Amino acid sequence: MTTGFTIWFTGLSGAGKSTLSELVERELRARGRRVEVLDGDVVRTNLSKGLGFSKEDRDTNIRRIGWVCEVLTRNDVVAISAAISPYRAIRDEIREKIDRFVEVFVDVPLEVAIARDTKGLYKKALAGEIKQFTGVSDPYEAPLDPEVAIDSAAETPAQSAARIIAKLEALGYL
Amino acid sequence: MTTGFTIWFTGLSGAGKSTLSELVERELRARGRRVEVLDGDVVRTNLSKGLGFSKEDRDTNIRRIGWVCEVLTRNDVVAISAAISPYRAIRDEIREKIDRFVEVFVDVPLEVAIARDTKGLYKKALAGEIKQFTGVSDPYEAPLDPEVAIDSAAETPAQSAARIIAKLEALGYL
Repeated sequence: MTTGFTIWFTGLSGAGKSTLSELVERELRARGRRVEVLDGDVVRTNLSKGLGFSKEDRDTNIRRIGWVCEVLTRNDVVAISAAISPYRAIRDEIREKIDRFVEVFVDVPLEVAIARDTKGLYKKALAGEIKQFTGVSDPYEAPLDPEVAIDSAAETPAQSAARIIAKLEALGYL
Repeated sequence: MTTGFTIWFTGLSGAGKSTLSELVERELRARGRRVEVLDGDVVRTNLSKGLGFSKEDRDTNIRRIGWVCEVLTRNDVVAISAAISPYRAIRDEIREKIDRFVEVFVDVPLEVAIARDTKGLYKKALAGEIKQFTGVSDPYEAPLDPEVAIDSAAETPAQSAARIIAKLEALGYL
């Protein structure tokens, strides 16, 4: 039996996936766990250079992240994916492959994400400078039954992280 | 400090990389280590679908394997790469990124590899049915200073595996 598991964040750009993944990573490390965060940018650099943002390329990118999470999980590591992963079918495909899979939906109203515009990407997307931008010109399919649903406009990151940790304890993973 | 390390096999198709990686994996598991074998075929399916065998595509494939080895190694896993990895510069690039890196050159005379033809690939390569086949129509650059050099035509796989394990002990990794 592995002690690893995968925390799969999903949500719009600016929802707070990276912030939450860092907080959860810190807490898990403090508890002596090995943790690896796979954020979208790191993976695009190291695994998916050359892939674009068509549905097919996004699916390929997410499948690769999923495979790395699967390998880490079976080796007792906590893998945290913090990519947008907009398509439900691919997320569910990855869930099927990983025994201990915790999907965390980081929900945020689009207008809040646009107001935050953490990376300045919504401005460009709304101006048409970035094509196929999730939430603006590409779909986002919310999870139907995630292990944890975060309302990122109503909770602080610390509150959300605490809820994720509580869920991991309830599942017996911590 | 991590307890992980990377064993990086390199050698022609048919040299015995997969056989050796299985023997070493078995011994390491018997010693209670977490081990993940990344063989060329598994990685081409999961990380590098669509890549061909041009120098550029091979380099990309090997860099991806290297990155997964790096991630596993820093998480206390023993990563074993069993891909041909014909180009010296890329192997050395990966060595720079991984603290505990053990290069194992599985040397075999080309005529022995052709006689074995484990996967039936040399026959096709020699008939021109496979292009850019390492050793036949694409170069193989042997390591200049590998941690272990195996003479796969002169040693049994068990002898070779024992020498690899002895080296890992000498390095203090076991």
